Amino acid sequence: MRVLTRPILEINLDNLLDNYRMLADLAKPAVPAAVVKDDAYGLGAEIVAESLYQKAGCRTFFVAHALEGQKFAGETPEAQIYVLQGIGEDSLPYFRKIPQLLPVICCPEMLGFWQKCGIADRQPAIQIETGLNRLGFREDELAAMSPAERQSFGLVMSHLACGDEKDHFMNAHQIENFERLKQTYFPSLKASLSASDGVFLGDAFHQDMVRLGAAMYGINTAPYRQNQMKNVVTVKAPVLQIARLPKGDFVGYSATYRASSDRRIAIVSIGYGDGLPRSLSNVGKVMFDCGGKLYEARIIGRVSMDNTICDVTNVPDLKVGDMAYLTADFYTPDDVARDAGTIAYELISRLGKNTRFDRRYIG
Amino acid sequence: MRVLTRPILEINLDNLLDNYRMLADLAKPAVPAAVVKDDAYGLGAEIVAESLYQKAGCRTFFVAHALEGQKFAGETPEAQIYVLQGIGEDSLPYFRKIPQLLPVICCPEMLGFWQKCGIADRQPAIQIETGLNRLGFREDELAAMSPAERQSFGLVMSHLACGDEKDHFMNAHQIENFERLKQTYFPSLKASLSASDGVFLGDAFHQDMVRLGAAMYGINTAPYRQNQMKNVVTVKAPVLQIARLPKGDFVGYSATYRASSDRRIAIVSIGYGDGLPRSLSNVGKVMFDCGGKLYEARIIGRVSMDNTICDVTNVPDLKVGDMAYLTADFYTPDDVARDAGTIAYELISRLGKNTRFDRRYIG
Repeated sequence: MRVLTRPILEINLDNLLDNYRMLADLAKPAVPAAVVKDDAYGLGAEIVAESLYQKAGCRTFFVAHALEGQKFAGETPEAQIYVLQGIGEDSLPYFRKIPQLLPVICCPEMLGFWQKCGIADRQPAIQIETGLNRLGFREDELAAMSPAERQSFGLVMSHLACGDEKDHFMNAHQIENFERLKQTYFPSLKASLSASDGVFLGDAFHQDMVRLGAAMYGINTAPYRQNQMKNVVTVKAPVLQIARLPKGDFVGYSATYRASSDRRIAIVSIGYGDGLPRSLSNVGKVMFDCGGKLYEARIIGRVSMDNTICDVTNVPDLKVGDMAYLTADFYTPDDVARDAGTIAYELISRLGKNTRFDRRYIG
Repeated sequence: MRVLTRPILEINLDNLLDNYRMLADLAKPAVPAAVVKDDAYGLGAEIVAESLYQKAGCRTFFVAHALEGQKFAGETPEAQIYVLQGIGEDSLPYFRKIPQLLPVICCPEMLGFWQKCGIADRQPAIQIETGLNRLGFREDELAAMSPAERQSFGLVMSHLACGDEKDHFMNAHQIENFERLKQTYFPSLKASLSASDGVFLGDAFHQDMVRLGAAMYGINTAPYRQNQMKNVVTVKAPVLQIARLPKGDFVGYSATYRASSDRRIAIVSIGYGDGLPRSLSNVGKVMFDCGGKLYEARIIGRVSMDNTICDVTNVPDLKVGDMAYLTADFYTPDDVARDAGTIAYELISRLGKNTRFDRRYIG
């Protein structure tokens, strides 16, 4: 028995690189770019970007904000770093300082700002709207641009709304819009339409460049079939205490669980303060590995900020200090997110933000 | 019009200190302690603890993990810092290094570990179970302790399960258990039962020390009446783009919103990657302050990692670069959390983790 208090976050870089290579192969001859926004979905943009650059030859990255790009630009000196939220007064200093940063221009107002910045040494990307109705130029705005303006870009891009549903009508709708707008307004420009999900939709969706994010981090972006990606994120936390729970007793805040028979409970040292969704209260589970055999233990009562209580009545030989798995290759981030009523993108980006983890990189 | 890209997190330290003082007054003559675990609910433990120490005379703090305490111990040299998750092999070095850290011992196994550590210069707290069924000694374990062991502690504490519901039977049940166990096993020890919510339950719940957390951060821990606390957290983000949304068009991932008439939408530069719950998709709202008049704009479609789309058809004179409020004194963290299906504790601790914010302290 060991007494331990701290949760652990393991990030498997070997698996991440394997995922990147598999996706890049699938998208050939399109250029693979890596999406490392939001601190590489919380997994550490500096180490992830450097690994991709050094070990997998990645030379194009996407971030959301310029400040995210400046954190690793020095480690990836020959790479281009596209900034999806574009450029504004509050990010201009980063662009001035780092020539690798290329804004993705989303609207006429931002284009006007860019033109006045006086940064003449690089070609931004242009985002065009094809069906998502998020960021991007609408067709009337493209039509209003001058030929010189249109030729000032280095990449035309858009983004799929339903790329994770193979037969969704929106996919055909968006690629039709994309091809038409590209041919009409940017006939000679390099093009990018797909993120990870689009890679699985076939050649037409690959265009000149694919933007690899979620699937690289192990998420199943083609949920209509078994996941082909390797798991990247493992979270475990120690059992702080094991106790009897007498029949009739309540558990946790607001007394939302009541024992209908005598139970045994374990208090696990992780909570929503560590990024475990509170929506797992009374519906999620943790896993225990007892000598190679896996046991499920249901989360009972409310997940609190620092602790999660689970029913271990049927877990044999459990001791204080044993590790509960919150996510692993046998209970993946996709599985946990499903139990929590969300998606693995939100789950891992949230878990990865927390500084209380003992964070360990594999590979 | 200004082009801006970055969300802003404002933390009002003046209001936080006012809340602390109000709660401390209410609990007199109990000693007020400040709960700054989870990086002060994401708001920055170092600056929050230092402010409370310097400006409000706070001399007792609670954290969850020892590593959280060591971050600000140097700024609060005369303070005691209780560590709620207690002590284990993985946190022992912090305790050895920092004499201010006092573990809260939760079970016999941890007590055994503490006794073998050879740290003789301080008195830990003991957590006892009174109804929450989370961390804490059960009565048979208290009965099994020797008199010398019982006298080794400096504080006996427990925690309320339903302190935010004034008339909940659990409150009477827990205080009865607490008084009985204290009298039986720790008759001469200082005692602490209540966090913020218990402060509002009356003198009997104050004991010798109250642990002020959520209400200090502006959360209504007595939701059976209007909130008396001042708001501490304001989040705003710039409008990146404004666009027409034609009747029949879909919005966002998985096309979960469809316009039943021509609308106008704004794309706001914040998403779940910044800590905005994805569960606000299609149900939450953002607020705009147009010349002193407030307007609500419903969130439509899925909240994505970096962007949130809202319907601004009825917001007059909106321009790119205008700020959308995600939470503020007129749409508090409690309000947002209600819309998101969670509690403000989870919301603010999550928002506060994100490094993409332009973080500003007031006061």
